[in-house]
Amino acid sequence: MQFESAQEQRVLAVDIGGTKLAVGVVDGTGRVLESLRTPTPAIAAAEEEPGKSGEAIFRALTDLIGRLTTDPAMLSGVGIGCGGPMSWPDGRVSPLNIPSWRGFPLRDRLREEFPGLPVRLHNDAICVVLAEHWLGAGREHDTILGMVVSTGVGGGLILNGRLIDGSSGNAGHIGHVLVHPDEDPAEARCQCSAVGCLEAIASGPRLAAWAVRRGWRPDREESERTGRDLVEDARAGDPIALSALARAGRALGIAIASATVLCDLELATIGGGLAEAGPLLFDPLEASLRERIGLDFAKQVRVVPAGLGQNVGLVGAAALIVRGERYWSAD
Amino acid sequence: MQFESAQEQRVLAVDIGGTKLAVGVVDGTGRVLESLRTPTPAIAAAEEEPGKSGEAIFRALTDLIGRLTTDPAMLSGVGIGCGGPMSWPDGRVSPLNIPSWRGFPLRDRLREEFPGLPVRLHNDAICVVLAEHWLGAGREHDTILGMVVSTGVGGGLILNGRLIDGSSGNAGHIGHVLVHPDEDPAEARCQCSAVGCLEAIASGPRLAAWAVRRGWRPDREESERTGRDLVEDARAGDPIALSALARAGRALGIAIASATVLCDLELATIGGGLAEAGPLLFDPLEASLRERIGLDFAKQVRVVPAGLGQNVGLVGAAALIVRGERYWSAD
Repeated sequence: MQFESAQEQRVLAVDIGGTKLAVGVVDGTGRVLESLRTPTPAIAAAEEEPGKSGEAIFRALTDLIGRLTTDPAMLSGVGIGCGGPMSWPDGRVSPLNIPSWRGFPLRDRLREEFPGLPVRLHNDAICVVLAEHWLGAGREHDTILGMVVSTGVGGGLILNGRLIDGSSGNAGHIGHVLVHPDEDPAEARCQCSAVGCLEAIASGPRLAAWAVRRGWRPDREESERTGRDLVEDARAGDPIALSALARAGRALGIAIASATVLCDLELATIGGGLAEAGPLLFDPLEASLRERIGLDFAKQVRVVPAGLGQNVGLVGAAALIVRGERYWSAD
Repeated sequence: MQFESAQEQRVLAVDIGGTKLAVGVVDGTGRVLESLRTPTPAIAAAEEEPGKSGEAIFRALTDLIGRLTTDPAMLSGVGIGCGGPMSWPDGRVSPLNIPSWRGFPLRDRLREEFPGLPVRLHNDAICVVLAEHWLGAGREHDTILGMVVSTGVGGGLILNGRLIDGSSGNAGHIGHVLVHPDEDPAEARCQCSAVGCLEAIASGPRLAAWAVRRGWRPDREESERTGRDLVEDARAGDPIALSALARAGRALGIAIASATVLCDLELATIGGGLAEAGPLLFDPLEASLRERIGLDFAKQVRVVPAGLGQNVGLVGAAALIVRGERYWSAD
């Protein structure tokens, strides 16, 4: 398919998370021309064989794609962001929150749907970082760490203008950089099994649990004690919620300090629900970071909120196609 | 200058540290054809103006180069490794251990000596990593962290086959990744001013000081209480020296775990004096690393001793020319 300008290029973008499937058509400038989203079908593994429920989710995805109005013949490629873990670049996905996809060959299945087109898939956190680098808070910079702090803590590295994949496509796991390796395991054991990972401190659920242990919202349901509620209460001045955000900020400062000296970063961008706390998170983060960085070159690093909104995942998935020379190193 | 094969290529390699200047001629396969070294002239800053003593060191370097027997007309380039910090890629160097070079324009000065030739300069720790990647322990691998653990703790990153420079040429400072950020500042304050950097724990001098505080070699002079002495005593079974190496190994394991999740490393190589302790260092390192890594992809990482010997710095400096397409991203 030939196209004459970035405005005329059309990329099918797919963003798959545990709670929603989103699809869209994005042009070569990153504009989202149309998009659709639907909750990820919740199919109890017990009700069906895992293989069948996996197929049902894929069918929900292709149905959603079929409802887009753009002529498939106009497309120049398919970009996909999906929750990890996954094997990469072959794109067999096992998203933590989609139990019926275990080693599901998502890239191959979409290739069958779009024969002849490039079909490229990466971690959803990576796609967020690509979007931020292409068009968001990182767009003037060549050497950035992009982060998403919400239910988990994910990220991606762009160094000297290129996405870093690492040896298995998993570079950027800032959530498992060790920030409090000497802390009591009862307080700081991570889901990954290590003690003191950033994610074990600063993810929304872990932060909420920390606050609850200190007496925050004692009479509420679990569903009303999320990271988002913590941000809300901190804004209203709740001292425990404020302490929790300060704790997250300090941990983020330690992880960013380590990443900065190792990768000589210019910039770290932070998106996700917790970033919406603004200065309540960023001020303690900044204080911690400045205390933790001694080397002159590293003092140049800046930390900023992510710049893009709701469609960031679709834009980043499209970037795998539109800016393949920088962001796609595989076949 | 045309050359017909890697064997016929001739690169002038320069390796500048606080204690020695080394120069050599290296062919395109990494073979060191000739080399010369001399102690770095120790010129008390008080005796002369700083500018003049800086010139004396440069003169000692050009004199040493002049004693090489290879015809300068045969050279295809000049590669230089030098102690940091430095501004890069312009190559104004301020090596910690050469006080009379502060912002000394080493790259430009050598360009004047070799007009028309590419002259490339990088941190000496980076050059060690380049040599290990080109011809040493990392040569089968695309995604490695190379480390040097001796008076300081330095390193460099090769990710997906290319040297990572970062935003100012300073990527790879693994020595300032935070491993014990919560430790008592009196025990773990780093020269860089942060608390709990790897270098503040695992460098030879810091490790020796830690051992001395616990009663190691109480009656000896400072010059007989070095990291090298610690390795020697640990080999002889001294329990404090063994504890010190175990402490270094654990700290290295934490730093390598963080670097591995962030950069999706296949391999870390460790050279420098402390690495000569062998299993006395590597066994506790390995135990700590395995405990600190929870994510499946990261468990693939291996840690090995560096593979090259005395001329590693010259070989790495030459690699800046011979393998410029992978190792040199600047002008």
